[in-house]
Amino acid sequence: MPKALDHLIEALASLPGIGRKSAARLAFHILKRPPQEAADLAARIVAAREKLRPCNNCGNLAEADLCDICANPARDNSIICVVEESSDVAAIEATNDYRGFYHVLGGALSPLDGVGPEELNLDSLSGRVSPGAVREVIIATNPSTEGEATASYIITLLRDSGVKMSRIARGLPAGGSLEFADRTTLARALENRTTLK
Amino acid sequence: MPKALDHLIEALASLPGIGRKSAARLAFHILKRPPQEAADLAARIVAAREKLRPCNNCGNLAEADLCDICANPARDNSIICVVEESSDVAAIEATNDYRGFYHVLGGALSPLDGVGPEELNLDSLSGRVSPGAVREVIIATNPSTEGEATASYIITLLRDSGVKMSRIARGLPAGGSLEFADRTTLARALENRTTLK
Repeated sequence: MPKALDHLIEALASLPGIGRKSAARLAFHILKRPPQEAADLAARIVAAREKLRPCNNCGNLAEADLCDICANPARDNSIICVVEESSDVAAIEATNDYRGFYHVLGGALSPLDGVGPEELNLDSLSGRVSPGAVREVIIATNPSTEGEATASYIITLLRDSGVKMSRIARGLPAGGSLEFADRTTLARALENRTTLK
Repeated sequence: MPKALDHLIEALASLPGIGRKSAARLAFHILKRPPQEAADLAARIVAAREKLRPCNNCGNLAEADLCDICANPARDNSIICVVEESSDVAAIEATNDYRGFYHVLGGALSPLDGVGPEELNLDSLSGRVSPGAVREVIIATNPSTEGEATASYIITLLRDSGVKMSRIARGLPAGGSLEFADRTTLARALENRTTLK
């Protein structure tokens, strides 16, 4: 196999969820398309990596000092939704159900991987949360071991602020079934049951 | 979503087998890694597209005038295996079972998609096949409608050359089962049965 092709396949295969076979498929596709398309893809990768940086306020991906959400005067800045990654912001935004601000931690606590509180965007969170300005902090870290540990840490961190805190609901996913739900999910779904009025 | 991110996701989602969700996942991954990695991936895409061109002899991907296979004196140049794409060369090479030359057509006949004989690397195939130099042409186009049509076309094209032609076997795939094989595959497997000695 020519070296340039091998190098491309190797780089593509290092992306998440792309094995060597898929990488080869992508590489052959890129080589079949006009050179301009390959140049364009390469330029977009470089541009995205160069232009996007953490928002000064919330840590979300931004092209300017503030991300589009923090810069939007129509958003409710009295609610802060704490998430692990910018991709989580995108997921919540896709629901069209939330009009508040975010706080992106840049990961979750994971001592085994060397991720302690200092590695996360936690300092500025305490700075942002003051009883006058903020009425609720929604903790939306993942329902995983690391996400739960991070949620606990944030609860302790912000307890003295006196601001209301909440955790996103854990229960059965839409379209799921009791039969195939794991024990923890089902236990949470029972525990967090909502009263019918 | 910031524009630079949107542009990147859009470009990634245009790759085969990558939907918008996977594209977003890849984009967020690229943005989390060091800038050098993004630059490297971009450089490899550009380098591959610029450096690789069709081999002057067989049409396979090459970094020089001849591809690594045509330039290899240890290969048997009296057998030519005709395939649709360079990715098919890679697949056959991976078997370690073939030591001859290749001929890459650059696709298969597909009149509905506007691919006629002129669009394929067929002219140079007739030029390569002469009874003195070549003892066998293996037609290894895909066992699809287009691949079979292309195979028929090549058989007609080379009939007068007097060179032996063969078609790769069609039958049950290794690990497959009769129960789940489609009718055409099973019919071919019966038709092309091999005599036991």
